[in-house]
Amino acid sequence: MTKKIVTLSGDGIGPEIMEAGLEVLAAVAEKIGFDYVLEAKDFGGVAIDKQGLPLPAETLVAAKNADAILLAAIGHPKYNSAKVRPEQGLLAIRKALGLYANVRPLKIYSELKGLSPIRNVENVDFVVIRELTGGVYFGEHTLEEDKARDVNDYTADEIRRILRFAFETARKRPRKLVTSVDKQNVLATSKLWRKIADEVALDYPDVTLEHQLVDSCAMLLITNPQKFDVIVTENLFGDILTDEASSLAGTLGVMPSSSHGVGGLALYEPIHGSAPDIAGQGIANPVSMILSVAMMLRESFELENGATLIENAVEKTFTDGVLTQDLGGRATTKEMTDAILARL
Amino acid sequence: MTKKIVTLSGDGIGPEIMEAGLEVLAAVAEKIGFDYVLEAKDFGGVAIDKQGLPLPAETLVAAKNADAILLAAIGHPKYNSAKVRPEQGLLAIRKALGLYANVRPLKIYSELKGLSPIRNVENVDFVVIRELTGGVYFGEHTLEEDKARDVNDYTADEIRRILRFAFETARKRPRKLVTSVDKQNVLATSKLWRKIADEVALDYPDVTLEHQLVDSCAMLLITNPQKFDVIVTENLFGDILTDEASSLAGTLGVMPSSSHGVGGLALYEPIHGSAPDIAGQGIANPVSMILSVAMMLRESFELENGATLIENAVEKTFTDGVLTQDLGGRATTKEMTDAILARL
Ligand SMILES: CC(C)[C@H](C(=O)O)[C@@H](O)C(=O)O
Ligand SMILES: CC(C)[C@H](C(=O)O)[C@@H](O)C(=O)O
Repeated sequence: MTKKIVTLSGDGIGPEIMEAGLEVLAAVAEKIGFDYVLEAKDFGGVAIDKQGLPLPAETLVAAKNADAILLAAIGHPKYNSAKVRPEQGLLAIRKALGLYANVRPLKIYSELKGLSPIRNVENVDFVVIRELTGGVYFGEHTLEEDKARDVNDYTADEIRRILRFAFETARKRPRKLVTSVDKQNVLATSKLWRKIADEVALDYPDVTLEHQLVDSCAMLLITNPQKFDVIVTENLFGDILTDEASSLAGTLGVMPSSSHGVGGLALYEPIHGSAPDIAGQGIANPVSMILSVAMMLRESFELENGATLIENAVEKTFTDGVLTQDLGGRATTKEMTDAILARL
Repeated sequence: MTKKIVTLSGDGIGPEIMEAGLEVLAAVAEKIGFDYVLEAKDFGGVAIDKQGLPLPAETLVAAKNADAILLAAIGHPKYNSAKVRPEQGLLAIRKALGLYANVRPLKIYSELKGLSPIRNVENVDFVVIRELTGGVYFGEHTLEEDKARDVNDYTADEIRRILRFAFETARKRPRKLVTSVDKQNVLATSKLWRKIADEVALDYPDVTLEHQLVDSCAMLLITNPQKFDVIVTENLFGDILTDEASSLAGTLGVMPSSSHGVGGLALYEPIHGSAPDIAGQGIANPVSMILSVAMMLRESFELENGATLIENAVEKTFTDGVLTQDLGGRATTKEMTDAILARL
């Protein structure tokens, strides 16, 4: 059956890297016989410019009816002090599609080790799973002249759902270790979180569960990143820890992510922003977008063969020394994409 | 006039490092003619064991009447699942004494550079200022069977006070740069925070203010720690970022901190815990406690000469290769302390 993929190119380098990702998708689809149609929609800054809001109704309807969504990049700083901002589109689409599980694998490619700010990145290989539709992001916000308040709410069901997702993820990995991160010595939501983590663990006797406080975790990510396999945490801690973790690689240019919803729908996107300073020059690194396509083939369509084809081609491209500027090389977006296509 | 210093030795290695700190204090006081009396009180686990609660009334009364407080270390894990826990003492003393400004300098000693997990720590020299008596730490916490809630409150006055503290600190430093950290694209408290930061900045034309989102800051601490001079942030972000920042040194053993209250009262303590695994063996590193004494002389008693004497002696001790086990050497607590005393 033909799969429908909605593409949201966004702004800045978004359209350029989306094009690269789709070229690779087309080539792989032909090789493995994957049948799909694309539907491009406005999202973020582009949508604000054209329609006055970052997530127009028709984009949302298309996304809801899609089998998967590819998002390139949003976040042009020209909206930074505007009333309606591109990020509001991100928060809105997460909520509207119920994208509760954000998955960010951290892999350090041996050819890119030199880029890492960390001395010892040998054998770093973990994934951070962030709860994405609850917590203080979606609680009440009250801003007055002389005081302000934010409310952080979690239900047991929300916590159970993301913890199950983490345990399922860990079960498929060789080390089968879940590190649940909270601040249970201070927060009520964290006390509930820890209790439920312990309960869910009972259903996964093959997986090991350990708890870390968020402050300790922020240290350990730097001093002992090898320690981690699957990290799972709530929305705000996840925002901070995923960014901290990704900085270990020394580049955001090669990191994909997925966000999964309840009905099986998922959105795939690079973790970096839209880099407006280099937009339109043809030099943006397309790898994170291309790897997001691989993640989509694996996680939404169970096409492990397609995902592996892409991932191996990317790795081979690195080994052969083809690198974009941000990775210390001189390849353009097109040259990088062609190099990957040639190695599929 | 004789100054009264209340000492809270705590548990684990607390008493050993407190003894070392007080030896150095005595020696320096004699050199510079500083007149003080000590009053030792129970706090944390010790107080729970003896009196059933971590911050007994007589400890609090003594602390309130002190000119400064020295705290060594608390946090024995034997209380981890107890109803009354040592950390509750920490939160209670912060609140009761109004210790709103937590100050953590990050200095990387050139002799200890090899310990850092980070490749490039040349010229890293910043201080993190964390708001310590507001935010979600002291908001309402509701824990039910199937849901939980934490409330994050800030008043404009609380925010203004800590920002003034940060600008005052920056004013005394060569670079005069304040980085205010928030999550203003999501939180109402952060929107208020940013507005007030901009207002306070008007009173400090000699200081530069920049804003960072907490997720970006968590990255930049690793990828570009040289960027920072004075970082100021709210309670929970400060908890995470101070721990992340301190991990850049590769050791917690040499880092002091201060927490300042409204009336000028301040508490000084190492940033590490009570390391019960090595307690009683005479091998604990006393440097963070000794440097906390230096910080006290400077910040509570304006004895810059005393502070500098200690700091130079510590640095000289490192240069001469006298290091405790945690720093890669073999010196005992006593040998390390004697070496510092000999270099005063
Ligand atoms: C843009 C912002 C609202 C968003 C978040 O905090 O979730 C971003 O930082 C992210 O991590 O996707
Ligand atoms: C023990 C805990 C409550 C405390 C905090 O979170 O403030 C600690 O982590 C700290 O940073 O002093």
